[in-house]
Amino acid sequence: MPLPPCEAALSSLPERPLVGVSGGVDSVALLQALVKTGRKPVVLHFDHGWRAESGGDARFVRELADRLGLKYVGGKMRSTGKIHREAEARAARYAFFAKTAKKLGIADLVLAHHADDQVETFLMQLLRGSGAAGRGMDFLSRRAGLVLHRPWLGVWKKEIVAYARKHRLPWRDDATNADTRHRRNLIRQRVLPYLQKQIGKQVADNLLRAAEISRAESEWLDGLCAESARLSELPVKALRTSPLAQQRRTILRWLQQRGVKDISFADVEAVRGLLENVIPAKVNLSMGKFARRRAGKIFVE
Amino acid sequence: MPLPPCEAALSSLPERPLVGVSGGVDSVALLQALVKTGRKPVVLHFDHGWRAESGGDARFVRELADRLGLKYVGGKMRSTGKIHREAEARAARYAFFAKTAKKLGIADLVLAHHADDQVETFLMQLLRGSGAAGRGMDFLSRRAGLVLHRPWLGVWKKEIVAYARKHRLPWRDDATNADTRHRRNLIRQRVLPYLQKQIGKQVADNLLRAAEISRAESEWLDGLCAESARLSELPVKALRTSPLAQQRRTILRWLQQRGVKDISFADVEAVRGLLENVIPAKVNLSMGKFARRRAGKIFVE
Repeated sequence: MPLPPCEAALSSLPERPLVGVSGGVDSVALLQALVKTGRKPVVLHFDHGWRAESGGDARFVRELADRLGLKYVGGKMRSTGKIHREAEARAARYAFFAKTAKKLGIADLVLAHHADDQVETFLMQLLRGSGAAGRGMDFLSRRAGLVLHRPWLGVWKKEIVAYARKHRLPWRDDATNADTRHRRNLIRQRVLPYLQKQIGKQVADNLLRAAEISRAESEWLDGLCAESARLSELPVKALRTSPLAQQRRTILRWLQQRGVKDISFADVEAVRGLLENVIPAKVNLSMGKFARRRAGKIFVE
Repeated sequence: MPLPPCEAALSSLPERPLVGVSGGVDSVALLQALVKTGRKPVVLHFDHGWRAESGGDARFVRELADRLGLKYVGGKMRSTGKIHREAEARAARYAFFAKTAKKLGIADLVLAHHADDQVETFLMQLLRGSGAAGRGMDFLSRRAGLVLHRPWLGVWKKEIVAYARKHRLPWRDDATNADTRHRRNLIRQRVLPYLQKQIGKQVADNLLRAAEISRAESEWLDGLCAESARLSELPVKALRTSPLAQQRRTILRWLQQRGVKDISFADVEAVRGLLENVIPAKVNLSMGKFARRRAGKIFVE
């Protein structure tokens, strides 16, 4: 009998990964599926302090880990008295994950992001615009010493809920930052249902497929640019004869490696302009940094 | 003084191209801009017979060409008594363009597709789903002996209308097939305005940028696959070690070159499955064709 998709998707994961568990249905089901497929994950929970009863989520996850005989590690957002923005909360959460990974000597972290999350992320990237076109999240990626696994990007939320129900799992409603809620819920509760009503139910499948195609292509292109992106300066002549998209992708990844933040498509195009012989051969970037062309090379200063 | 965008975008076009003129504002403005920038295009008009007064469009375009001292060539859809579907109309239009190009010994054909068309095309491809993710139209492409130029893909419709008004150009409302009207107008009149209302006016710019990034990346990837796609059979071993996206893109382009129609993402993935040692080593495709693996190669039969 074939495994349910929730379990089949975990086949390439290690025996003893870290798993991020918020206490919501997705991560509780993920924890269950990891255990059912013979793994012994370490349960990580981070309390963002987004609601008064968030300590309740931590207690719930700790008790769940105890019942399953699994190690539990909890972390907590340092209170600043202000409401945290999504970006700060995420940074603190990943800092906690990375610190715990180092302490335990386990780099693999499994996260419960699923196909609905992927479609929403892909649409947000496309509609919001960014230096690269939409590509969604990766099944496998690296961040601050962590190896992030998102094995459920091809599994729909409804399959996860069905899996949780079938196993009679208890879960808690997710605490979400109001900031995220606004942007993501706009896509989830309004934009996607509207598109499905106007164009057809298959829109979600089509977007998931487009995200998967873009994701894999993006990975391929990054591989082709990786060597150049690691250079301390970009050679003008070699880059000028590359295909347009290779110039753009190389410049984007190279600027990121040089520590430049908030890189827009216009920034990339401006740096690309330095490949031609133009005066002034200097482009302003964020936070006072700039790119300059000198002696056939492009530098960030 | 810098040229208006409508004229500046034409800089790389030849002296004497063919130009497709429906009589609508876009193509009338394009004709004007070609003449204003010193070119002597040959005016091509194709009558789709979509409305009773469509002969009026042909007369209008012929008179416009006469006034500008330009050669005019008209074509007409053969009447079948039925309403033509968009695909048939397009095939007949391009057959007329190709025949005329051959007769006149001019391969370059300029078309008036603009940024609004590009955003709509990109969104339709994404939402409808296809073998490849959305990529929009190309600035430069080849089709049946024609070299198609779409220099205005980065120029918004409102800039074109402003240009036409400034030069006091006369134009006729576009006759559109009801079939196209349905799908494209859904995007134009409902989906895009809805997205702009929910997310912000910048959605159109963001989608145009995403289309441009995807278009250039797709061109780059096609270049990387071109050699393999021309092979009569695909070598399993070499392809199996390529990046996932390269396998997909190579298979898609190779199937297209082998004359396979209506290739879905599922078809591509099924053929990709032949790279692994599986039984049965055969995949059904459209119109009775199939792909088969034998002796380390994949064939279409």
